[in-house]
Amino acid sequence: MTVLVKIAFDGTNYRGFQIQNDAVTVFGTFQQALLRILGHETQIKGCSRTDSGVHAKCFYLSFDTPKQLDLRRLPLALNGNLPPDIRTLEAVQVPDGFHARYDAKGKEYTYYILNSHIDSPFFSGYYYKVAAALDVESMQQAAKNFVGKWDFSAFMSKNSSVTDFVRTVSYADVKKDGDMIKFVVRADGFLYNMVRIMAGTLVSVGRGQIKAEDIPRIIQGRDRSAAGPTAPAQGLFLTDVFY
Amino acid sequence: MTVLVKIAFDGTNYRGFQIQNDAVTVFGTFQQALLRILGHETQIKGCSRTDSGVHAKCFYLSFDTPKQLDLRRLPLALNGNLPPDIRTLEAVQVPDGFHARYDAKGKEYTYYILNSHIDSPFFSGYYYKVAAALDVESMQQAAKNFVGKWDFSAFMSKNSSVTDFVRTVSYADVKKDGDMIKFVVRADGFLYNMVRIMAGTLVSVGRGQIKAEDIPRIIQGRDRSAAGPTAPAQGLFLTDVFY
Repeated sequence: MTVLVKIAFDGTNYRGFQIQNDAVTVFGTFQQALLRILGHETQIKGCSRTDSGVHAKCFYLSFDTPKQLDLRRLPLALNGNLPPDIRTLEAVQVPDGFHARYDAKGKEYTYYILNSHIDSPFFSGYYYKVAAALDVESMQQAAKNFVGKWDFSAFMSKNSSVTDFVRTVSYADVKKDGDMIKFVVRADGFLYNMVRIMAGTLVSVGRGQIKAEDIPRIIQGRDRSAAGPTAPAQGLFLTDVFY
Repeated sequence: MTVLVKIAFDGTNYRGFQIQNDAVTVFGTFQQALLRILGHETQIKGCSRTDSGVHAKCFYLSFDTPKQLDLRRLPLALNGNLPPDIRTLEAVQVPDGFHARYDAKGKEYTYYILNSHIDSPFFSGYYYKVAAALDVESMQQAAKNFVGKWDFSAFMSKNSSVTDFVRTVSYADVKKDGDMIKFVVRADGFLYNMVRIMAGTLVSVGRGQIKAEDIPRIIQGRDRSAAGPTAPAQGLFLTDVFY
């Protein structure tokens, strides 16, 4: 059977999702837990590569097994073999050959910015702190300009394997709740560091260093240096995956 | 000058707010930081006693000093002398003789219940986990029945000093956001463990063990054993104080 597992993780203590030599990753940690339960090795496919320190409220993994697993009990069994910062939320059977990454139709990321000069005593490690007062309305207007089918080269860190830079952003919005500013973006796919560069650019807009109405020109210019800085990983959460 | 300081703290590592022999408290920790800045001892008045493990997004302290402090700089100076789980948010001058506790007209508490059999990888220590499915609509109806001026003896743990058990609850509501159930209650004052017993009672209502319409009868009976259990401290946050 092919199984799709939904997990959530706090990325603070991991070097991202993917396998890396000599580094503790979410993937490696999950792989060990699954091996203990299945009793055999299997190729695990993750829905996304995530950077070191990035979090996920919703992340999917798929794998094949010749065994007939009781999928209602699998989350409990996995959680018993996982550290508290990785939790299995759900497991469902999917058609043979299903791939958590290639079958994903889109994803949603949420980036948290704490607009304060004082850190939160509660959510340390889950936001990017910006002390300078941010103009949230401008950030909101800027975010709207991300929506559409564009070549997002200007919002990508150098990365060897990708050759198609066109992505379709279906939703992008900025909301404020107290001191916390939340940037939510949905697309059919994301380039390397795309959300973090968008978030860094929105902070530049909020500080008045980039104008909201300049976003279309920055996209069209396809020049990374025209966009804002790459915001830190710790503010970034993968919050949904669409199949 | 008399100074009112607003702080927030994660109570996980503290034995409550009040001074206790041989235990690390929020009060003691704050007192040391303030002493380092003022250079003299002063009597600090807290807006509330809080139990071991209870958190505060908003907590006030008042004190007197003969010095003329720069109150815009005081939060930064205090935070430099405090651990990351206690943050000073603001400092303002108040009339001489102002008392953070006696001058408070009311308070708001928020109690967080995670209705899931799986813990969150992010907010560990900030909620009470209830695995059994809870009927949120019944909990909401039950909460409404707390509103009013009543003798809340049934919702109080034994405590020596208090003799007047009448409190006026001005607002009580239950909301759901995903798996998280949030109980918010405002009153002119709270009896010992009152919010935690209310929260425990609401969980009993959510599980069908107590009926929402029985709350008035439980209040009128003034019998602690008729209410639900005392919910754990870690789900409780002091979220506002009204002056």
